[in-house]
Parts: sequence; structure tokens; C-alpha cells
Amino acid sequence: MLDVSGGWQRLGCVGEALSAAGKFSICIDHHPTGDPFTDLHHIDPQAAATGELIFDLIGAMGGDLTPPIAEALFTAIATDTGYFRFSSTRPRTHQIVARLLAHGVEPARIYRLLYEQQSLARMHLKGHMLQNISLAANGQIAWVGLSQAVLRRFGVSHLDLDGFSGLPLQIGGVKISIFLVELPEGKVKISFRSDGEIAVNRLAVQLGGGGHVPAAGATVPGELAAVTERVVAEAVEFLSRR
Amino acid sequence: MLDVSGGWQRLGCVGEALSAAGKFSICIDHHPTGDPFTDLHHIDPQAAATGELIFDLIGAMGGDLTPPIAEALFTAIATDTGYFRFSSTRPRTHQIVARLLAHGVEPARIYRLLYEQQSLARMHLKGHMLQNISLAANGQIAWVGLSQAVLRRFGVSHLDLDGFSGLPLQIGGVKISIFLVELPEGKVKISFRSDGEIAVNRLAVQLGGGGHVPAAGATVPGELAAVTERVVAEAVEFLSRR
Repeated sequence: MLDVSGGWQRLGCVGEALSAAGKFSICIDHHPTGDPFTDLHHIDPQAAATGELIFDLIGAMGGDLTPPIAEALFTAIATDTGYFRFSSTRPRTHQIVARLLAHGVEPARIYRLLYEQQSLARMHLKGHMLQNISLAANGQIAWVGLSQAVLRRFGVSHLDLDGFSGLPLQIGGVKISIFLVELPEGKVKISFRSDGEIAVNRLAVQLGGGGHVPAAGATVPGELAAVTERVVAEAVEFLSRR
Repeated sequence: MLDVSGGWQRLGCVGEALSAAGKFSICIDHHPTGDPFTDLHHIDPQAAATGELIFDLIGAMGGDLTPPIAEALFTAIATDTGYFRFSSTRPRTHQIVARLLAHGVEPARIYRLLYEQQSLARMHLKGHMLQNISLAANGQIAWVGLSQAVLRRFGVSHLDLDGFSGLPLQIGGVKISIFLVELPEGKVKISFRSDGEIAVNRLAVQLGGGGHVPAAGATVPGELAAVTERVVAEAVEFLSRR
């Protein structure tokens, strides 16, 4: 088991089947929160990615770094570190990546495969979203909502909005970004992001959700307009109390 | 002189003054095209950034890597490699960056300062631009134009469109992206981008411009609509001839 120290349930029905099979199991992960649930476990919260630990494991076992293995490890590390930009990125991360590039990984090709395969519809929706970002709290909060009607108009599902939630944070001076998406069943999915200075998980907890300091969320019942008004007001109040 | 092996003229009026001063001069660069124009020169086209060469120079001179120096070198290398994604990025790049992080560079903070300080107006204009991307040549060409009227409406100058030209290339299947910006004086600035497979500089030369294989451009007189029609047609024809 890789990158799933939350337990078997993180693997859904696959986890159920594996757990029921009762075979010898190993968990390798860099997430700090998990309790041991496998026969053997190796958890290193200092690692920026589980890919770093697999790199070390291959070295310790005297294995070869073939080009496909190097490419897979590079991809695992690049995605888990937001392409080397998250604060988790450490000197060791770059040392490992240097070794992977020496084994033939082409960074430009992998970047293109990871981030430059969007559909025209998703691009148009992203444009619509960026055009509708609003500011609150003197520019410290940026928020934007997408309704079911808009998603239908662009032919994009709410499941295909990966990477959108952090976009309002690209505006200078913004400390909290709020991305609201109307779900089909009369609920609204809210994603909070911060630059790490503001603990948005505390804001998410107020709405029955949770998460990490820089990235948290909640799902609340209601219509998009009403939920947006309430959530933005709570965020403004939350920020003023600091 | 750093990163300017094209000659004194690359530095504009500063270059004129420096050249006229007749002092001893040194040029350090990683661009392959320049002829020597300084008393001493060190050109290494293998380096992904001139920042790599400065790192090596500090080491060779026995200098200290203070946190401000490490941060400046990290910034130079990160920007010149498109945050480690361009094909110029090599194992040595990551080895150097590992050393810089060990000297206290915070990658998340630098990323935020470099790329997440946009104005709301620029964000809205980016949204408008993404919403107006069109495809041609069965999805192999993506193009979008911005008129002077649109730039005025969003309160953004054509000088503030850094990083926009490559956005249409984020669409899967696109081989050439074309970004057209109407200039105040009845001309249109055209930027071509490709994933490196198609030599868009040859397309730019057809229009009196030039550039590199994956990034080239030209400036032609005319109105936006007419120029767009002509340029997209030329690009479609150019692609069909391959």
C-alpha cells in the first residue's frame, strides 16, 4: 500500500477486498497522520512524496533505475510537490530528481502530459470562472462560484474541476480563496485555500468540514447564491477576528 | 554582464553607456548564439540558467552562500527554467537547487512571489482570453486575439500580458498556439508557441519575424480581425505542408 496511511478505507472497495484477503501487507507513506494498519509499515513525514521513499527502497535493494521506473518516480514526486513548489519540497527531493533526470526523464514532456492536456470546454469554463472572481475584505478574500447551470452550459461535470480551487489565490494580497461549486443534489461544495498563514481548516470546521491549514473544505446544503453570501460573510468575520 | 551574450545592444541605453565607458568587462551567459563582445567571457550553453554559472563561480571563488544569495540564485534558475519544467533543466540544475534549499530557500514563498501576485484586472482579462480560444486544423491549432478595446475595458496594457501567449497550448492535441495582440499604432503582435515538435520560428519568418523552435513571433501592420484571419490560414497551411 502506497500513500494511504489513512487505513484500508482510503482504498474504497479495493481496500475492503485486500483487507479481507488477509495477506501479508506493507504500507509506505509520507503522510504523518496514519495509525499502523498493515503488517509492516514505513512512514516518513519528512519525505515530500512517497515516490522519494520508493526511490530509496530501490537503492537499498540494489535495484536498477530503468527509464520507465525513473519516469514513474519523477511523476509521483512532481505531482505530490505541485511540481517542486510546495513547502514540503526539500533538498533531498531535488537530489533524487537530479538522479532521475540522469536516467533519461524529460521534464518538459512529463509537464505537458500532466498539465497540458485540457479540453477546450474546460479551458472555456476556467475562463468563465476567472472572469467572475470577486474580492471581499479589502482584497484579502477572493471568491467565485459555479452553478450547475454554468457547468451544464460548458459541458463539464463538477468532478472535472481539479486544480480550479487555488486559482483565486494567484491574485496579489489575497489571503483566503473560496471556490464554491453547486452539486446536483441541492448542496454546495466549498473549497478554501490560503498561503499557509491563515488556517482555513478552522473556517471549514465552522461549516461542518475540515482539512489542512492551507487547504480545507466543506459541503453544505442550500442554493449557490444563499450559501455563497453566508460563507463569504463568515470568512470576512473569521479574518477580522485574527 | 549576465545573460546578455547578444551584445551591448541587449542592454539598451545602459549597454551604450557601459560600452562607451571602456572599462574592463566580463560576460557570463548560457545562451549559445552570442559572439564575444567583452574582455572576458564565459558562455556555457549546457547550463539551464546563468544562475547555475554564478553558483559555480561562487563555489570556485570560495564564497559563502548566504540566504539572500541562495534566494536570488534560486529565483534566477527557477524563472529561466519555467520552474524546472523546460527541457533545458538538467540533473545539475536540481543538484544546485538542492544546495540552495539547504541554505534556507523556501520554494513555496518564492513561487508565490513570482507567480501569484496578479491584479484582479489581469485575472479577469485572462478569463476573457481563455473563454475566447478557438481551434483550427482539427484541434491542432489554438488561437485567440485581444483587441485594444478589450485591453482598455479591462484596464490592462499590452505590456502586461507576460505569460499569456502559451496558455492555448495547455489544450490537449494542440501543436501550435497563436496569440494575437492589437497594438495602439495599427499593428498586431503575434506570438507562436509549440511543444517543440513544430518549428514555429519558420512560421514567424514567413511573417517577417523570427525566434526559437518552440517560441517565436512577428509584428505585422493591419487590423486585428484581418490579421487573425490571414495568420490562422497561414498556420493551417504551414501545418498541412509537414
